Parts: sequence; C-alpha cells; structure tokens
Amino acid sequence: MLQMLILRREIEFQLYENLDTLSLLKRSRFMEHNEHTFSAVLDTAEKIATDCFLPHNHLADQNEPSFDGQKVTMLPAVKIAYQAFADAGFIAARYDFDEGGMQLPESVMTACSGYFMAANPSSTAYPFLTTAAANVIKHFASADLKARYLEPMLAGSYSGTMALTEPHAGSSLAEITTSATLHADGTYRIKGAKLYISGGDHELTENIVHLVLAKIPGGPSGVKGISLFIVPKYRGDGDNRVKNDIVLAGLIHKLGYRGTTSTALTFGEQGDCHGYLVGEPHKGLQYMFMMMNEARVGVGYGAAMIGYRGFQYSLEYAKERLQGGKAIVEHGDVKRMLLAQKAYTEGAIALCFYGARLVDDIHTADAEQARDAAELLDLLTPVIKAWPSEYGPKANDLGIQVMGGAGYTREYYAEQFWRDNRLNPIHEGTNGIQALDLLGRKLWQNKQQGLAQLFALVQTDCAIASGPVGQQAAECISHYLAQMPALIDSLGADLQSKESQALQLANAECFMKVFSGVILAWQWLRQINTAEQRLGTELTSEKADYYHGKCQAGQYFVRWELPQIAPYITLLQNRDDSCHKMRTNWF
Amino acid sequence: MLQMLILRREIEFQLYENLDTLSLLKRSRFMEHNEHTFSAVLDTAEKIATDCFLPHNHLADQNEPSFDGQKVTMLPAVKIAYQAFADAGFIAARYDFDEGGMQLPESVMTACSGYFMAANPSSTAYPFLTTAAANVIKHFASADLKARYLEPMLAGSYSGTMALTEPHAGSSLAEITTSATLHADGTYRIKGAKLYISGGDHELTENIVHLVLAKIPGGPSGVKGISLFIVPKYRGDGDNRVKNDIVLAGLIHKLGYRGTTSTALTFGEQGDCHGYLVGEPHKGLQYMFMMMNEARVGVGYGAAMIGYRGFQYSLEYAKERLQGGKAIVEHGDVKRMLLAQKAYTEGAIALCFYGARLVDDIHTADAEQARDAAELLDLLTPVIKAWPSEYGPKANDLGIQVMGGAGYTREYYAEQFWRDNRLNPIHEGTNGIQALDLLGRKLWQNKQQGLAQLFALVQTDCAIASGPVGQQAAECISHYLAQMPALIDSLGADLQSKESQALQLANAECFMKVFSGVILAWQWLRQINTAEQRLGTELTSEKADYYHGKCQAGQYFVRWELPQIAPYITLLQNRDDSCHKMRTNWF
Repeated sequence: MLQMLILRREIEFQLYENLDTLSLLKRSRFMEHNEHTFSAVLDTAEKIATDCFLPHNHLADQNEPSFDGQKVTMLPAVKIAYQAFADAGFIAARYDFDEGGMQLPESVMTACSGYFMAANPSSTAYPFLTTAAANVIKHFASADLKARYLEPMLAGSYSGTMALTEPHAGSSLAEITTSATLHADGTYRIKGAKLYISGGDHELTENIVHLVLAKIPGGPSGVKGISLFIVPKYRGDGDNRVKNDIVLAGLIHKLGYRGTTSTALTFGEQGDCHGYLVGEPHKGLQYMFMMMNEARVGVGYGAAMIGYRGFQYSLEYAKERLQGGKAIVEHGDVKRMLLAQKAYTEGAIALCFYGARLVDDIHTADAEQARDAAELLDLLTPVIKAWPSEYGPKANDLGIQVMGGAGYTREYYAEQFWRDNRLNPIHEGTNGIQALDLLGRKLWQNKQQGLAQLFALVQTDCAIASGPVGQQAAECISHYLAQMPALIDSLGADLQSKESQALQLANAECFMKVFSGVILAWQWLRQINTAEQRLGTELTSEKADYYHGKCQAGQYFVRWELPQIAPYITLLQNRDDSCHKMRTNWF
Repeated sequence: MLQMLILRREIEFQLYENLDTLSLLKRSRFMEHNEHTFSAVLDTAEKIATDCFLPHNHLADQNEPSFDGQKVTMLPAVKIAYQAFADAGFIAARYDFDEGGMQLPESVMTACSGYFMAANPSSTAYPFLTTAAANVIKHFASADLKARYLEPMLAGSYSGTMALTEPHAGSSLAEITTSATLHADGTYRIKGAKLYISGGDHELTENIVHLVLAKIPGGPSGVKGISLFIVPKYRGDGDNRVKNDIVLAGLIHKLGYRGTTSTALTFGEQGDCHGYLVGEPHKGLQYMFMMMNEARVGVGYGAAMIGYRGFQYSLEYAKERLQGGKAIVEHGDVKRMLLAQKAYTEGAIALCFYGARLVDDIHTADAEQARDAAELLDLLTPVIKAWPSEYGPKANDLGIQVMGGAGYTREYYAEQFWRDNRLNPIHEGTNGIQALDLLGRKLWQNKQQGLAQLFALVQTDCAIASGPVGQQAAECISHYLAQMPALIDSLGADLQSKESQALQLANAECFMKVFSGVILAWQWLRQINTAEQRLGTELTSEKADYYHGKCQAGQYFVRWELPQIAPYITLLQNRDDSCHKMRTNWF
C-alpha cells in the first residue's frame, strides 16, 4: 500500500517557490510564525493523516455507516480520527491565538488539508464540514449562539452540517419549502425535509449543528425569502438536554465517499423542531454563500488530491510492474497516461494553492490588494470547483487504465479513488451550475474587474517567461488569451437578448472549458517559469529531476491539452445551437 | 426501473434503413429467412433478456459470486438465464440448420446480442464466452474433440472460457510460461497459472471447457511457440468422469461486471492436468486470434450497449425530474449531456452493426467482396474495440451527471452502468494495445487495401450527402479525410527508423483518436444521410421526430466532437515528443 500521501517536495514547491508564502510573515497577523512553525504544523497534519485517517480509508469504503432505525453505526476509527484532527487544533487553525486558534495562513492550512483529503476523503468530510459551518456561525451569529455552538465545534465536541438541498429542489434553492415559524420565545419552529445532507447524523460528536436554509412565512418569494437557522440535534444543556425534533429518514448509499453519511432528514415532524435565526431574516442565502464558496473550493481541492493520490498510486505500480522485459513506466503510452495525470493533478493543486493565497490577501493585505484579491477569487471560484472536479476523476480513470486488470480489481485502491472522486463534479453545485455561475454572473461582476486583473496577470507571466519551455508555453497561451476579450464581449452582447441568452447559456459549459483551459495553462506556465528559473542555477541531478518533471508536464499540458479549447472557441463564436435546438421528442 | 432495453425503432433503423440487411436474403445461406423470421428471433431475444437477464442485473451486482474453497456460489437466476439463452438456440444461432443452428446472419445476431448486453452484461458474459470458444473449436479442433466438447457447448450443458493471461504476462503473451508436455497417450499435461479468466469457475454447466494457451517444451520462443489446448474442468464421461487437475486459486473482485466470475486458475499443480491439442502445435495464437477478434468486437459492442442503456435511463429521469419549473430535459446543459450520450452510443452502435455486416459479407458475399470485407473488418477491429469502450463509459459518466445526486446514489442504476463499463477499455487487450495494433500493424496490412477501401467508402458517402445536415457534415469530414493520406504516409516513413518509431508508437493513442474520430463521423454521416432521405418523404410527425433526432445528434457529433481531433493531427505532424521524452525519474 502506498503510504505516501503528497510529496513534501510538492507542497514546498507550491508554498515557497511557486508562491511566496514566506512573504506573509511580514504581515502583522502572521508575525509570530516562521518557516519552522509552518513545517511543524505540516508534520502534524501529515502524521495524523497517515496514522489516523489513512489506515481506515479502504475499510470505511467496505464497511459503510449503517442505520438500524435508532442509531448510525460506523467504524470506531472515524471518531478517533475526528478527535485527533480537533485535538491538534485544526478546526480552529485559522482563528486568532486568543480565540484558541493557530492564526495560520489559509495557504498553509490548505497544504495541511491536502494530507487529510489524500488520506481519507470520507472521514475528512466530517471535520471539514464542521470547520466551514463554524466559520458561518463565527461571522454571522449572535454572541449567545456563538458561545453555545461555536465553542464546542472548535473543541471537537460538536460537529456541523449545511442543510440546503430538498428532495424536489436540487440545484434550485429558490424552490425550497422548509418553513421557520417564529415562536413566542423568539426561537423558530422548523418544518421540512432535506436530502443529501453530508454528516447529517452519526455518533462522532455529542451534538450536531445543522445550518438549515428555511423560509419564514410571509417573507419575500424565491431566494430572497431564505433565512439561515442553527438547528441542533440536541437542544439545551445538562439536565435540560433533549433531542430536537429531527428524524433521520434514511441513509443514502453512494458510490463513493461511502464513509461520509449522506442523509435524508425530516425536521419538525412532531411540530417541535427548534431553530435559532442566524443574523437577520431573509439573508440566509447570502450567509450561506460564504460556506458554499468555501465548500466549493474545498470540493475542487479534494478532487485534485484524490486525483493526485491516484496518480502516485498508479505511478508506483508502473515502476514495479514488468511487462515485455521492462517496467511498464518505460512504455510510451503508459508515460502518456502518467504525464496526463501529473498535468491534471499538479495543475489543479497549483490553482487551489493560488486560490488559498488570495484568501490570505483578502484577510491580511492592504485594502486595495485585498479588494482585488476578493474580485479575482470570486471569478476563479467556479473554475476552482469545476476544473479539478472534472480532471481529478479523469486522472483517476487514467490511473485505473495504467494498472490494467489490477486497476479494475477491488483488491487494489485505484477503483476507490475513481469512485470517491465521482461525487465531486456533482455536490456543492454541479459543474453545470458552476458554468452558469461563471458565464451568467461572475464574468461580469463589478465591471469585470476580476477579469481585467486575470488577463493582466496572465500577460505578465507570459512576458517574464525566459526559459525555452516557458517561452513556448507563453506563446501558445498568448494566442488564446488574445481571443478572449472579443469572445467575451460577443457573449456579453448575446446575453442581453432573450433568445440569444438562452442559446449562449446552453453553451455555458463550452465557455467553462475555454476559460478554465486558459487558466490552467497559465497555472502551468507559472510552474514552468519557477522550474526553469531554478534549473538555471546549480542543482544536484536529483533536484533537477523534479524541475524537469514540472517542465515536461507543463509542456504536455500546453501542447496536448490547451489546444483542445480551440474547437470550443469556434463553437461559441459560431453561436452553435446544436444543443439548444434539440427537442425532447427528438431524443 | 427502466424496462426498455433498446428501442426496436433503433434496431430496425440500423438493420433495415442504415444497412440493407434484407439484401442478405438473396444469398443462398439466408434464403429460408425473411423479415418475419428476423422479427421473431428479435422478439425472442428481447423477451428472454427482459424476463431472465434484466431482473437480476442489479441483484447480481450486489450479490457477487462467492467461493468457499470448494464451490462457487451465485444467484440461481444466472443459471436460469444461461439455460434460457441456450435453449432458445442462441449459442448456435449462426450455425447451419443441419448443425442444429438457425443460420442467422451476424447482423441479426448482433441485434439480438444487444438486448442481452443492455439487460445484464455480467450474466451475458457466460453464454457469450461459450459461443466464442465454441467457434474456435468448430474451426480448428478435430472431429473427435468437436463431438466431445462442441456439441454439449452448443446445447448449453458445457460452457467455455479463454485462458490467455498469466500473472506476470498481462498484455504480453510472448512471455507466457504455462507448459504443455506430450504424454504417451497423445494428450498433454498442462502446468501453469492463469489470471483474470472470466467464467473460469462456476456451477452453471456440467463442465467448463478452457481454451488454454501454453507452450510445448522445445518449441519456438515467443508467440511463435504458443499452442492451443482444450482443458476441461472434468474429463471423461459417465463413470469415468473425474475432476481434472485445475484449482481455483481465488476469485478476483472487480468494480463492475461483478456477476461474472473472474478467476485465478492453477493448472497441473498435481502434475495431472490433461489437455488436448487443438489443431497443429505452435499455431495457438493464430487460432486464438479468431476468438480474440470476436471478443474484441463483442467488448466494443457491449460497451456501446451499456452506454446506450445508461443514456436511456438518464433520459427517462430527465423527462420526469422537475427543477426550476420545468423538466430538466429542457435545460440547455442537460440537453447537451443527453445529446452527447446519444451521439456516442448510437454512433458506436452504428459502427458495430457495420462490422457485423462485414462478417456476413466475409461469409456469404462473392469472393472479391468477401476478401474486401475481411480487409476492412481487420482494419476496423481495433477501432470497434477501443472507441465504444472509451465513449460508452463517457456516456455513462454523463448519465450520472444528468441525474445529479441521484446519479451517484446506489439506489439508482446509473452508477452500476458506469462501473460495469469501466472494464471494457481494459479487458480483451487494453485500448493502448488496440492503438498499437492499429498503428503498428493493421494500417499497413496487405498493402493498405483496407485503408484504401475505407477512404473510398467515406468519400462516396460524403459525395452522396444531399440534405443540409449531411452536406455540412460531409464538408467537415472531407476536410479531415484530405489530411489523412499525407499524415499516414509520414507516420509510415517514421516507423521505418528505430528512434522515430519509438516516438510515433508512444503517440499511437493520439493516432487512434484521429483515425477513430473520422470513422465515427463517417458512421454519423451515414445515419444522417439515411435520416434526411426519409425526411424528404411524407412522414407522420412522430416518425419525423426520430429522424430529426438522428440529424441533430449527427450534427452535434460533427460540430462538437470531430474537431477535437485537430489538435492531435498537429501533434502527430509535429512528431511531438512530450510523452516519449518523459523520464521515469522526472515523475
């Protein structure tokens, strides 16, 4: 079994060479940190991930949680892992020292998170959901609610969920019908059904804090009438502690992430489900978007990490497996499949680290830079969710193919990586929704400030390319980048009229392919530039190998993958209506 | 649950409109048939598939065969299905009337096979393997062996396997070490281990006839020293019946096709495993290629059918599931995903029916046409195996995506289709092997007669396109077709030198994408031409709908999918060495 989760070399490259994470140390928030404290926390993450999460990744897949009508039972190892994660302070890692946190940069926490996602995505989901829910409570809930719920969440004794989806309303939150009726005591009574709620029930923690989207009767219709509530599994403390009126209607059996309970929950069947309003009424979706955006970035990053582990796993197999008198890693077509996996997953990882750095800039850079970072991250979020969750699974598919018959055999892990990763293009907003979010909203936000920044950044990185691989990559990227402004302008014009709007939104995924292709090529160019700069210095051959690998994978991406966007540009330019004009009765 | 396996309309279109299967009735072999006898046998296939195979498709996935050290146990329904298939005469369907067969054209048998593959690919594997093994015995074994093994196989009381792969030799048959030593009585003693043998053990039939590749000591080295043996699970009859020395070392647990036992078999551990030489010594691989070629075509067709069923399944869901006030089938991006599924699966089906017709021509056309058909089928075989087994799973992936959360839920079937289909790009020669077979061998065979025919056929179909969709498609296809001769010539030149040969073979998959893209676009052009011709006649609107669907899916394929080969043409022209030059220590 492959014990290695992520090459430390890769993390250090992303943090310290491709990004200048150490420059954060100059900012007051991070002054008490240094490279050694970062290293120490990475060591802790790697150790806990390896010791507590990795050993039951396959076991939990084979022994998924079960529900006997009363209680959810799962492997005891999951609880031990949860507690180890919380005890090490990771739930509060980003919080202030005086809040009990580590005041850790998002960049470094992202590096830590990678170990857990690579080791065991389904057990990692529980503390990650708790972390995200805690963040929403921290930002928007009253001091009283924070004292009651946030503190035990950070300590690891309570966990959190996000309860958005309803059986009849998957991607369409405007249609939710869960209601929240004000009670005389100022609390609310929640009534409704939620579906696909990850971590919606279990015995890992003393209590579960559901963040529930519901509508207060009489409020505005659609998404503007949605409010956010804390709805705990148990309410009250000590002797007053009673089970809230929430029923686990059943567990959903998924093809992957099997260790994470996915639940159907019924709130208020007995009319006695208490909920507590977070912030102001009717602002629930806005609050929730904070958690959703984090979750979307998390999904993309998780997909990259499952992809990366599958890449390393198939690489190890390919080095050992002999065929035709040599290790299969020496065969041309196997090299292709490994190189593609490297290009997909390390490209996705670079993008996610880039996003994490933007979060750090939002929180700790000067006002102007922070505003810029916020605009850019907003624009990149659908790409960070969608691209890795499309290409991570592609990498896992290639991982299976590299291994031949062993790849489809359940005695090996390649097939689990592939199954686990298949959820990622769907949950937290399907990739189709991400494409609509990009083309219908994010592209035009705040007079396209994010877009203008992005183009300028890509141009700069093209201009500074000085090595042979980087210069060639820059040339290819510039070719496509030059086509973007006119393409985007014409799409913007089309979106003004109703008929052409429907046509272009039907092609939203097509635009996502083009836009994300350029962004990923840019992320590879950045890595090539960094690598070629290092190769220009004196290096041992082992150190040089790593940088040669970066250059070769980047070259592969720019030559083999990037040009695949060309046909999609043509389709968009031609306002192709092949999909839009298809009729239901023609199928 | 979706009961429909394949639209009869689709089968009739492929058989009688897109191909002129009724023209076969003029040939003496098929003179006793007519459209009604074909219909009757299709009805029988559909009924048995629906009644005996479909009901346990999901059950068999959830309750895979188990081995207690003595016996393999599986759902009783599998045996009932096997017997129903055999009793209806399908194992011998292609055989002469006087051999107990139906003298059925391959085209019609292909249509019948589709029902079984769509209904339950894992239970279908048993009779299909038997059919293929029987064919080899029929063609190459002695009359005595035929009497002992072929007859009970056709009757359904014996089943067959192909035992090629060994633990240390997956794709590389030259390296097999199973030995066959001549015994005084003229039989052989077999010794060796085989892996991934589908149907290698079970209790479905009285006996199992393994077709084993082994080397007779002292023979030529490599593939030229391989001979073929019948090695039965039980030898002798009646009171003389004893178990042959074959041990089931274990079952392999796969991610899909779980109902089909995949086995590790040990032959001759006690030195008493009897085998009977088929045909002449050292010609085993040549004989086996007959079975392998059939199996490869079967794998491609199975992949198309699993893809097709997933398409229909997600289509049904999309028509019923409401979101944002309308069925999701009306949403632009869902249309795209359904249209892509239609384009992939119906394109693959058309290709497989085309291949089946070539088999009929090989057997029953005049000598010249038969020879041409054989050349063309040989050239197309790697494409028929590889393209559907790449795009069938892609269709199943899109089927999951269409269904959102329901898609990844095991209470629905979309995820099983996707898992089942994941074996197809690997077994019976990985798609990488198919690409090497195409570029390294098939393309150049017999002075490129197959290739010349193919180009002429595509040109003809381009020339006769008369409707607007067809004419546009023809224009796009001609554009790429025109580039093929020079591209292939330059590849041929490169293959002459050792260094450029290694480089180009590393890019074999790249050529497969280009070549198969043109072939599939041609198959779509043929369907568009047929559809537009029908649309030019008086049709009810319901009948017209079907043809409009063909045109729209064909247009989608030519506009959205075909142009994706352009970047690969460029890579081949540039002799791109990104994969070839990657070094193991750079990963």
